[in-house]
Amino acid sequence: MKTKLVNSIREAIALAGLKDGMTVSFHHHLRNGDYVLNMVMEEIAALGIHELNMNASSVFDTHMPVIEHIENKVITSIQCNYMAAGVGRAISEGIMDTPVQFRTHGGRPSDICLGRTPIDVAFIAAPTSDPMGNCSGKYGPSACGSLGYAYPDAMYAKKVIVITDNLVPYPLTDFSIPESYVDYVVQVDAIGNPKGIVSGTTRITRDPVGLVMASYAAKVIEHSGLLKDGFSFQTGAGGASLAAAKFLKDIMLEKNIKGSFGLGGITGYMVDMLKAGCFQRLLDVQCFDLDAVESIRTNPNHQEVSAMHYASPSHRSAAVDSLDVVILGATEIDTNFNVNVHTDSNGYIMGGSGGHSDTAAGSKLAMIIAPMFRARMPIVTDQVTCISTPGKDIDVLVTQGGIAVNPKNAELMYRLKDAGLPVIDIHELKEKTERITGKPHHPKFGDKAVAKVIYRDGSELDTIYNVPVK
Amino acid sequence: MKTKLVNSIREAIALAGLKDGMTVSFHHHLRNGDYVLNMVMEEIAALGIHELNMNASSVFDTHMPVIEHIENKVITSIQCNYMAAGVGRAISEGIMDTPVQFRTHGGRPSDICLGRTPIDVAFIAAPTSDPMGNCSGKYGPSACGSLGYAYPDAMYAKKVIVITDNLVPYPLTDFSIPESYVDYVVQVDAIGNPKGIVSGTTRITRDPVGLVMASYAAKVIEHSGLLKDGFSFQTGAGGASLAAAKFLKDIMLEKNIKGSFGLGGITGYMVDMLKAGCFQRLLDVQCFDLDAVESIRTNPNHQEVSAMHYASPSHRSAAVDSLDVVILGATEIDTNFNVNVHTDSNGYIMGGSGGHSDTAAGSKLAMIIAPMFRARMPIVTDQVTCISTPGKDIDVLVTQGGIAVNPKNAELMYRLKDAGLPVIDIHELKEKTERITGKPHHPKFGDKAVAKVIYRDGSELDTIYNVPVK
Repeated sequence: MKTKLVNSIREAIALAGLKDGMTVSFHHHLRNGDYVLNMVMEEIAALGIHELNMNASSVFDTHMPVIEHIENKVITSIQCNYMAAGVGRAISEGIMDTPVQFRTHGGRPSDICLGRTPIDVAFIAAPTSDPMGNCSGKYGPSACGSLGYAYPDAMYAKKVIVITDNLVPYPLTDFSIPESYVDYVVQVDAIGNPKGIVSGTTRITRDPVGLVMASYAAKVIEHSGLLKDGFSFQTGAGGASLAAAKFLKDIMLEKNIKGSFGLGGITGYMVDMLKAGCFQRLLDVQCFDLDAVESIRTNPNHQEVSAMHYASPSHRSAAVDSLDVVILGATEIDTNFNVNVHTDSNGYIMGGSGGHSDTAAGSKLAMIIAPMFRARMPIVTDQVTCISTPGKDIDVLVTQGGIAVNPKNAELMYRLKDAGLPVIDIHELKEKTERITGKPHHPKFGDKAVAKVIYRDGSELDTIYNVPVK
Repeated sequence: MKTKLVNSIREAIALAGLKDGMTVSFHHHLRNGDYVLNMVMEEIAALGIHELNMNASSVFDTHMPVIEHIENKVITSIQCNYMAAGVGRAISEGIMDTPVQFRTHGGRPSDICLGRTPIDVAFIAAPTSDPMGNCSGKYGPSACGSLGYAYPDAMYAKKVIVITDNLVPYPLTDFSIPESYVDYVVQVDAIGNPKGIVSGTTRITRDPVGLVMASYAAKVIEHSGLLKDGFSFQTGAGGASLAAAKFLKDIMLEKNIKGSFGLGGITGYMVDMLKAGCFQRLLDVQCFDLDAVESIRTNPNHQEVSAMHYASPSHRSAAVDSLDVVILGATEIDTNFNVNVHTDSNGYIMGGSGGHSDTAAGSKLAMIIAPMFRARMPIVTDQVTCISTPGKDIDVLVTQGGIAVNPKNAELMYRLKDAGLPVIDIHELKEKTERITGKPHHPKFGDKAVAKVIYRDGSELDTIYNVPVK
């Protein structure tokens, strides 16, 4: 049988015709265990190719070699939805001439499908593939579960290279990406370190402050008017968010509420809620832990969805449009409810929107859960140093010091007050916090734009400037 | 929850903005039980819309009302891959001014994806859908199994309307087509008549001539050099083809040969071969019977594939490219091995390529199985009246009167002769047949082009002319 197998990543790169100035793309389901981005970029550098645009759905700290490729002009621009603190710090220090473009998990596939961000060569890290490129994330030693973020890359890139460490006979069934889109398949020893790909199940917080916030969060949902049969929910993998999910599960079981679906990056806690009957279905664009991987592989009610299906604003609909409640984090939130998840209190890049602004825009109730302060830096400010998600899409901020409801959602405010929850005006919450922490210092920025925050509809939302190196 | 539900087909048509001169599309998984094409065209006619191009993957005789829509200029051009004899006769009699465009099951999705045959409004007959348009063929009272041919319509039409008789709560998992592509959802009482959608399992032939052909066919495969572990196979649903599959199954079990996959329109016989271990997988673009529907719903090794995945020549690969052997039919085959499956012995349209030329081109061994003559009309002619599949892609013709091998495949000829099979030169077979039937009459055609046969790569292969009405 004629196959698409080639002998090495280098050969595949050459066959794909990669040249100076082109765009390469990567997806991040292997998370901090990913070997593929580094392996590929090393081969590209060895081939003497320069001035690439790297469109990676997320950049983790395992990708620190990217910094060297930037210094050597192998990579001269970056598009991503999330960037961890290691690479982020270098970007904030101004090592690139072209600002990084931050998108969202829904905006990235939307812009790829609309042709706004064309990809020349996409590299798909595939935990299992057959020799024609039918590939899946569910099986193999490096199984990561869903490959949702890789769909737009596979469907729209001019050339598509699948890299796998688990080659199986043709035809693989239950594939994520069909052979129709794949040009070349490369077999390697390992595409990732399983320990970094998926953690063991993240533990819920045992911190008393986190538990107070989680308890408030669950009560906000309970009294929001949305917690009834058909309820749908997304939460992150942070300790307090998971604790909130746990409390929510208890409420749902007690009240015998049959929700419809859980969405998002999926953790074992959401799998538990599915098994307990809190949800009928899970829609999964990315698995966060081994329980989620096991579940998506074996439970037909746990469904992989593409990034477009998850959150694209330019498709006919996305799952986020049907979402009732999302729990999200923040590094800062201002009195207009604008949220920053891109930079830390010193102004360094250490995150990104991911699905933050997509779910905030789509859901009926977008909740931020965050402590009043971290390391004596208050969470509520007059103006966030970076707008990741516009305040118009945020309904409520839950802290241990009170629950601040966005005035745009008057009904929610009345409901929570009626329920006896500690509702507090966000300005008052800010002052209450500053009585503990003192007035915060604000980070000092230089005048070099190091990143642009691009909203899910493709418009520019904010600019991040450099942090001067001391 | 905001949904895409609208009250009626008429409302959906209006919302989709359908206007004179546009293109509507349909898929044919409900086969001769389909209600949707007629329901939709009736509403379109009632709305006074005219001069439509109708791109339907196949037209069955349940779609006879199409003739009235042609007479009333509601439909002024047709694109399809197959047309049954009822509508075909009217077309052959010249009721349309514009020739019908016949494509193949691989050429149609290819041309849609390449933008050569744009669709304004696609109508998806969905045995199950949720209110956002996630839909599947596997479930519901009108279950038809795979929705493979509907994928390109859903993905590329400007507007997509899902019509279902089994609306389920959001979100449907195990969907064929995701909500990302769907604009409107209409619930109706019934999308089809289950008796016409899928037959009971088609029976293998009991006709002695058919059994001889089937036995030869199985032996050709046995001695082709291709029947070994990893073998892959497609066959049609005709009685002799199914008998050949049955004999092949016996040989595979006896020799303990573990094939890789069965492909195509899938019947219960292929399901039996999967269960018996003759194949590891089935790749299914269309289910022919209830056993196939049950299998695709419950057996994870029985995989739905899109029309692109099945057979598109312009994608990076298709399943037909990995196919070893296909058994196909013919109404005529000429001494250059060109095959006609479009017209009958009187020149009337009564079929179409379907996947005929796609699988012939992709497979290592394309076999035609046909009786020497039908109703005293010989199968082998000097020149087919219509080229459906070019002779260069056909390897062998199996009849009860001998096995004619295309001289291009000398190795096969030697192998079959070595095995003691009754190999016969195709010219000799023609003469042998005519000694029984006498010289055939040839159909008389007029000079009006009533259909164009478009090859899978988009080039024009042949023209079908009208049959003068006596």
